[in-house]
Amino acid sequence: MHVEEMISTHPHVQGNVNDALIRCIEACYDCAQACTVCADACLGEPMVAELTQCIRLNLDCADLCAATGALASRRTGSNELVLKSVIEACAEACRLCAAECARHARKHAHCEICAESCQRCEQACLAAAETITPARQ
Amino acid sequence: MHVEEMISTHPHVQGNVNDALIRCIEACYDCAQACTVCADACLGEPMVAELTQCIRLNLDCADLCAATGALASRRTGSNELVLKSVIEACAEACRLCAAECARHARKHAHCEICAESCQRCEQACLAAAETITPARQ
Amino acid sequence: MHVEEMISTHPHVQGNVNDALIRCIEACYDCAQACTVCADACLGEPMVAELTQCIRLNLDCADLCAATGALASRRTGSNELVLKSVIEACAEACRLCAAECARHARKHAHCEICAESCQRCEQACLAAAETITPARQ
Amino acid sequence: MHVEEMISTHPHVQGNVNDALIRCIEACYDCAQACTVCADACLGEPMVAELTQCIRLNLDCADLCAATGALASRRTGSNELVLKSVIEACAEACRLCAAECARHARKHAHCEICAESCQRCEQACLAAAETITPARQ
Repeated sequence: MHVEEMISTHPHVQGNVNDALIRCIEACYDCAQACTVCADACLGEPMVAELTQCIRLNLDCADLCAATGALASRRTGSNELVLKSVIEACAEACRLCAAECARHARKHAHCEICAESCQRCEQACLAAAETITPARQ
Repeated sequence: MHVEEMISTHPHVQGNVNDALIRCIEACYDCAQACTVCADACLGEPMVAELTQCIRLNLDCADLCAATGALASRRTGSNELVLKSVIEACAEACRLCAAECARHARKHAHCEICAESCQRCEQACLAAAETITPARQ
Repeated sequence: MHVEEMISTHPHVQGNVNDALIRCIEACYDCAQACTVCADACLGEPMVAELTQCIRLNLDCADLCAATGALASRRTGSNELVLKSVIEACAEACRLCAAECARHARKHAHCEICAESCQRCEQACLAAAETITPARQ
Repeated sequence: MHVEEMISTHPHVQGNVNDALIRCIEACYDCAQACTVCADACLGEPMVAELTQCIRLNLDCADLCAATGALASRRTGSNELVLKSVIEACAEACRLCAAECARHARKHAHCEICAESCQRCEQACLAAAETITPARQ
């Protein structure tokens, strides 16, 4: 992905990039894609009835990662409180999805890989959230 | 929209609908659409340079409303903490976007209508968030 | 929804609205929401294993309706060829999802309502596509 | 990203991956992110009034790439006609966005990088579309 290259050329950033936010954006796009595949792969498993909670958490996580990746890609000055809240909600969605995927990881390789992607995204979100200190508005 | 009709036939809901959540979902889809148009309408105004913050807040609000509408449309049992956080972040995004749109409401009818849609969505989100009491996990 | 009100205040539109496109946008947002609920409701049914194709078509239809609704809400002048193609692809996604939902309509009220929403969206997309005549580029 | 790793563990794929589709999915997520940043970076430029068409094409391209990446990540058997149509529409959106970004590439590094990302995504979409031969339905 071109995340760092793109962000560093933004007129409001000018090379002064927030590395933790870059990692968070990359992880969000990766996790959105992994969760989309995992939901569909779970739907293809014979024991789909045991995987319905996994599918739902996948879909919630994918939607939230996509929104978080887009918001974090913008420099919406006065929106830091929103961005921090969304990134923290995303970290929680990733944590729950990772925990559910991990329960199925021994049986299904897609759940194992997806759990890793979610864990990495959770960590990247928490690290990015720490760097955002919203001004009072 | 068919929001109430659809939700009330969900096997986990069975007619026992959360009215505040229904209103929140409807408002989120409406606000996502209004903000998408407002951003594009602002881009068509001769004084677009004065509207860049409005456009950014429109885009953030549209993305977050779309994600919130989708998450709130699912019954992801154990995901209530995430849902509540996302709805609250969405309310804040709506509040900021409404305030910025309101500044341009006298000059631009699209900003005036969009501000109303954002305000209504903020209220609907706050009302829905109050009905969600996440269990400890 | 405020679709018509918003579009009619757009500086490039100025009251000269394309009614078929307005109906298409409304139908896309409605169908995206209905398909999101239907997928989740199907996941809650005891016979989820018989509904996996329905869930997949729901998810594809929801994603495509959301993108189509957003693109159709913008007045991206030179993009009419893309818009027409996307609206036609959306009509086809709605047709397939409606057909699959209709197969389960007697057993599941959510599939019945969702099939209606998809059919209405298919018709609205086809009617809107006819009004778009892309210039050669 | 984990695209190939995820797709190759899908029960309907089982290692028999479509390389062109994998490349297409990766390019779509990359291009969606690049276009989201480019739109926001254009909004931060003093000459934003000259960049409004670029911003609109960025937003259309981002929305369509996100939807295409999600649809292509699913194995919705009978949906190949829709998938092929969407991938082709996405290629066209990328072609138009690349052409507009290229016009501003000498002045704005974000437009230069975004043009490259769009061109690569266009090529990846065209290559993937060729591998999809929808059955009659």
